[in-house]
Amino acid sequence: MLKRFQIFGANTDVGKTIFTTALCKYLTGIGERVSYLKPIQTGDDYDHKHISRNSQAFSENIFHYKLAASPHLSADISRRELISGLSNKLIDHSKHFNWIFVETAGGVLTPGPENYLQADLYRPLRLPSILVADPNLGGISSTISAYESLKTRGYDVVSVLSFNRSKNADFYGNLEFFQNHFGSNKVFSLDLPPEGELTNYYSEVSSQMQPVIDYLEKYTKEKHEYVSNMAAEAEKIIWYPFSQHKEINKGTITTIDSAYGNDFYSLSKDKSEIVPQFDGSASWWTQGLGHGNSSLALAAAEAGGRYGHVILANTIHEPALELAKKVLKYTNNPRLSRVFYSDNGSTGIEVAIKMALKSTCVRYGWDVSDGSIGVLGLKGSYHGDTIGAMDCSEPSVFNKQITWYKNRGFWFDYPTVTMKKGRWVLDFPDGIPKVSKTEFDTIEDVFELDSRDPTPYKKFVKREINRLTSEGYKFGALMLEPVLLGAGGMKSVDPLFQHALVESVREIQFDGSERTVDVNTWSGLPVIYDEVFTGMYRLGKPSSTSFIKSLPDISVHAKVLTGGTLPLCITTASDSIFNSFLSDGKADALLHGHSYTANPIACNVALASLEILKDCRTTFWGEDFVNELSYHPSVDGVFALGTVLAIHLKDSNSGYQSTIGSEFHKTLRSLNIHTRPLGNVVYFMCGHNSSNDDINSIQDRIKTAFNIQ
Amino acid sequence: MLKRFQIFGANTDVGKTIFTTALCKYLTGIGERVSYLKPIQTGDDYDHKHISRNSQAFSENIFHYKLAASPHLSADISRRELISGLSNKLIDHSKHFNWIFVETAGGVLTPGPENYLQADLYRPLRLPSILVADPNLGGISSTISAYESLKTRGYDVVSVLSFNRSKNADFYGNLEFFQNHFGSNKVFSLDLPPEGELTNYYSEVSSQMQPVIDYLEKYTKEKHEYVSNMAAEAEKIIWYPFSQHKEINKGTITTIDSAYGNDFYSLSKDKSEIVPQFDGSASWWTQGLGHGNSSLALAAAEAGGRYGHVILANTIHEPALELAKKVLKYTNNPRLSRVFYSDNGSTGIEVAIKMALKSTCVRYGWDVSDGSIGVLGLKGSYHGDTIGAMDCSEPSVFNKQITWYKNRGFWFDYPTVTMKKGRWVLDFPDGIPKVSKTEFDTIEDVFELDSRDPTPYKKFVKREINRLTSEGYKFGALMLEPVLLGAGGMKSVDPLFQHALVESVREIQFDGSERTVDVNTWSGLPVIYDEVFTGMYRLGKPSSTSFIKSLPDISVHAKVLTGGTLPLCITTASDSIFNSFLSDGKADALLHGHSYTANPIACNVALASLEILKDCRTTFWGEDFVNELSYHPSVDGVFALGTVLAIHLKDSNSGYQSTIGSEFHKTLRSLNIHTRPLGNVVYFMCGHNSSNDDINSIQDRIKTAFNIQ
Repeated sequence: MLKRFQIFGANTDVGKTIFTTALCKYLTGIGERVSYLKPIQTGDDYDHKHISRNSQAFSENIFHYKLAASPHLSADISRRELISGLSNKLIDHSKHFNWIFVETAGGVLTPGPENYLQADLYRPLRLPSILVADPNLGGISSTISAYESLKTRGYDVVSVLSFNRSKNADFYGNLEFFQNHFGSNKVFSLDLPPEGELTNYYSEVSSQMQPVIDYLEKYTKEKHEYVSNMAAEAEKIIWYPFSQHKEINKGTITTIDSAYGNDFYSLSKDKSEIVPQFDGSASWWTQGLGHGNSSLALAAAEAGGRYGHVILANTIHEPALELAKKVLKYTNNPRLSRVFYSDNGSTGIEVAIKMALKSTCVRYGWDVSDGSIGVLGLKGSYHGDTIGAMDCSEPSVFNKQITWYKNRGFWFDYPTVTMKKGRWVLDFPDGIPKVSKTEFDTIEDVFELDSRDPTPYKKFVKREINRLTSEGYKFGALMLEPVLLGAGGMKSVDPLFQHALVESVREIQFDGSERTVDVNTWSGLPVIYDEVFTGMYRLGKPSSTSFIKSLPDISVHAKVLTGGTLPLCITTASDSIFNSFLSDGKADALLHGHSYTANPIACNVALASLEILKDCRTTFWGEDFVNELSYHPSVDGVFALGTVLAIHLKDSNSGYQSTIGSEFHKTLRSLNIHTRPLGNVVYFMCGHNSSNDDINSIQDRIKTAFNIQ
Repeated sequence: MLKRFQIFGANTDVGKTIFTTALCKYLTGIGERVSYLKPIQTGDDYDHKHISRNSQAFSENIFHYKLAASPHLSADISRRELISGLSNKLIDHSKHFNWIFVETAGGVLTPGPENYLQADLYRPLRLPSILVADPNLGGISSTISAYESLKTRGYDVVSVLSFNRSKNADFYGNLEFFQNHFGSNKVFSLDLPPEGELTNYYSEVSSQMQPVIDYLEKYTKEKHEYVSNMAAEAEKIIWYPFSQHKEINKGTITTIDSAYGNDFYSLSKDKSEIVPQFDGSASWWTQGLGHGNSSLALAAAEAGGRYGHVILANTIHEPALELAKKVLKYTNNPRLSRVFYSDNGSTGIEVAIKMALKSTCVRYGWDVSDGSIGVLGLKGSYHGDTIGAMDCSEPSVFNKQITWYKNRGFWFDYPTVTMKKGRWVLDFPDGIPKVSKTEFDTIEDVFELDSRDPTPYKKFVKREINRLTSEGYKFGALMLEPVLLGAGGMKSVDPLFQHALVESVREIQFDGSERTVDVNTWSGLPVIYDEVFTGMYRLGKPSSTSFIKSLPDISVHAKVLTGGTLPLCITTASDSIFNSFLSDGKADALLHGHSYTANPIACNVALASLEILKDCRTTFWGEDFVNELSYHPSVDGVFALGTVLAIHLKDSNSGYQSTIGSEFHKTLRSLNIHTRPLGNVVYFMCGHNSSNDDINSIQDRIKTAFNIQ
């Protein structure tokens, strides 16, 4: 593994260049090939010249600006240019040198191009870092703060280097404090240099760098051994989710050393380096604001420092209150007035189903413990892994071996919509009546529900429900994943069908009595939207309700809710649901509540995240690109909305057990795209703060995988 | 609300005292009563004299040390003394002054007494803070870093103050950058002072502090309005867990402004101040290393910055791998070899039950989808709120209104053990045979299982199981909460009974065939320990297995796992369970896995937490104190082990619906103890890093509540 280190300073003028020169001099003195890179130099004082004057290292300044000011004032390049320039130099120099030192400018958070703070600026490369401490009065504070700022940005701070005394006094005890605080094994010191000419100084002191070099050698070796063995260790002790272990071995496990933006930074196949790899599944559909996002890391630390966790029962804290207000505001559904917190989509669905079934029983005077009451839903739905959530879906490969799974309900088949050969086309399974218009120019036209006639769908739905109830079926809720059924195979449902389904259910009285129309209460059945996957801007909007143009009575949000950092779920409900639980008996309450309910850290991250998400772009995949894919001979249809791109491959054996996708997955891996197989569907998701360059780079690789020029 | 502010410096010598003097001068000039407090002064340069020379403020230095060095070298008081001294001064001065400024020493992380860094040192009081910025070259970096260190410790950094230029140059652009970074509304500036005498300077510039004072006034007013309204706002939109909303109103909701150590900092009844309140339930049994723990907050930020979240399916990352290794090592059960991650205790139990039932079906050749297979357990167990976890308990108030709940199993009654009048006594319900020894001097004697005879228990258990299986019951697992059944009412089971139950089950073949004895595989039924509440040092040991002296085949850990910060659950299992899922079919795999499975942030916090927990004390409640309680006429029995103290009150109507505790809860509230009712049981839990002083303070208040002198 390469010996590349980045030098940060706890403050400006603490001796970054002097330490680096001493390191270079010692190394070149023992015959090592050393390169020094200064990515940005401002003013006339060239650090790289100081290096080459005082050591045999090859030294180079990549970008230079005359104005001797903080780089954010003098440098006019973009971060992308800087990182790309540095990255190319690193690749090039790695061929010729076995040690590379990269020196940053000023302190750890000194601003640079585009006002990025140093530690944020260089974060994509995440080089192992060395912090040069401040030996002066007050330097304990600035050094520990600087260290924390580096850690918050996910750096490995390998070592802390400090002069053994300050310019102004012999002793402030800084060095001893650093050894105690950071661990004496990783703190090293050097004699304070004299004023003026340093040639003799370097000759005298460079040998003091031997223990540092030994330590950096050891770190590099151990780090390489560690990451090389991680997959083998994991194979022995991790029980992987949704995985047949007979198919898993250390060769199939990806070792993720860190992550940033849309990418994992993973160990390469030959174990020689860490390479970026597009996280195509957005880490199971969670990532929204980029991996390793320092704003969200800080939001977590802030609430961690202020609260840790506090119980929600009968209390209130600011992050829980503010997030509840924000989610109710953003989802903008006048029906929803109450927020119930839980830990993940599956628990949030269990909450939703408890809410809905009890509300139905109260309304219709049914026995609340009547286990025969089921849900109405759509085929291929998936609502979570806990047994109650599983019971909301029809029998499938996911639940057939779950001993306590019970098929509780009825699931409609439905028309789907995908782009085929440049046109948005509806596909109708057997038994589903066609509507008048079945092809569209744009996806916007598909969602123009006001100009489309739902009558055939509504007639069909009502007839089916009447048949079922006459056969003795009893229903307590309608549960939908709006627009896109995720785990079921990225099935894009005709939104008009979902609209018709909701409206039809609302026009039926499920106890056979007369309908009482009241806009403030649910009618027919409580309607639950499972927006765990599709909500919170995943499809470009805070709630996917707006696509269906029918308001749910209960809605469940998770995944992107925290920007893709921490588990958290919100189940929102209307007053008419909530009121069903009011009584003089505690046993009538909604007796649900996990210990970490409304965890302040997760709520605070969600708040910070939604604040950023609301201003993010909402379209990502290029129209031409989607169009082109839809003509590909292997492609049956494509769906692209918001951050999601789903490509349905042609395969006679479609569904979860299909293996047609596996060849594509292999090709994608070789192009550094990490995907999660889903039968005959290959899908991709990006973060909401992705740039055009990010998207283009992904699209280009997908086109390569499909042999599209 | 009181106008009290703490002044932190981004570095030493950035002008904390000058800004504070200017604030004091302006305020006293307009007739305000102002107090200035310097908690610790080192050396001969008295900041408080500078204040009184240049303003009409009352100024005082609380502790003084002659040595002009960092306070950690010169001050020899403890943090407790310092905080108590400062706290008393604040109470006293609040009577006479309407503004109080407290000036810290050096930079935000300059060490003080007991090597506590400034921001950690003063964290218990969490005064609203003002950060004085560094206007010099490099000051952008040190100021933002300092700000982040304050936020990580949970401070409200109300305002950032900066000189408008540096000593060495007219312009580094720092002030503009601060305005942009922190928000221009909260950043204020002041002219740079001249060298030497400052009397004229203060006269000229103090009016520049008017906008700062206006802002601090506004902040105080808005903060007071906000916290005063939080309960009313929450009442309207939060749907509370496990709560009958008819009993909830804004007067019953506790507003928690922050939390630290064992305490909430809550709005007082009269809404005039924020007061510490012992979090008696350890926030639903989660808190382990103190609320607002900055080490854990930093561990969260570190993983947030390095990864955010990454998918676990077929990948590995360092926090997940290291935590899995650590938990397997600490729980020290040779049977357990595999770690499955999920998000909370309830999901972890669902995982456990899926594991166990399938393993049983494979072993005995039963149909894996046979929903009649149930669990063996104990009456009053509670394993979580999701429906699968609910099905593992007998019918009760918790589940009787859950439409899909199904009673799946059989639950044994059992003998309990509590201290009564100074003796540890076993209580036997009807039908449970007595063992020979039923009274003990110490709790250690109760757990001396080797010297106790389990024969009567084993005979009883075997007879019962034979009766049940002959009646057609089919069992797939034995599930236990070892030692203490939490939600069921803090029932402390005779550990010998649990031991006998496990060993008896292991001696029975549940399909009627011959027993194959193999130490490496489970026999009879897979044994699941639900250690969500009792594990991870809650009772003083990493696993409560050691109390029962029988090894489980599956064990579930959550709650304290992360030290009480974030939701995370680990289900560990043996190879013989794991191997039941190996096959050539994906559908045979354990198809479970939440999106945030093995979340790196939660795993990293758990790692940091366990590293600290392993060295913490293991006994907390005083023997004499527990003894005294056990003689109280209202007390039926007491149980104390590890951090847990459970007091069972005498009541004819015991259980969840009992209200006998409610009077005690009211008394406890008035003594600033926040408890969570649990029928006739009043219980308390503290963090593992509690000091003797902490414990004594809690014990004294409990004694007061019970009228014990």
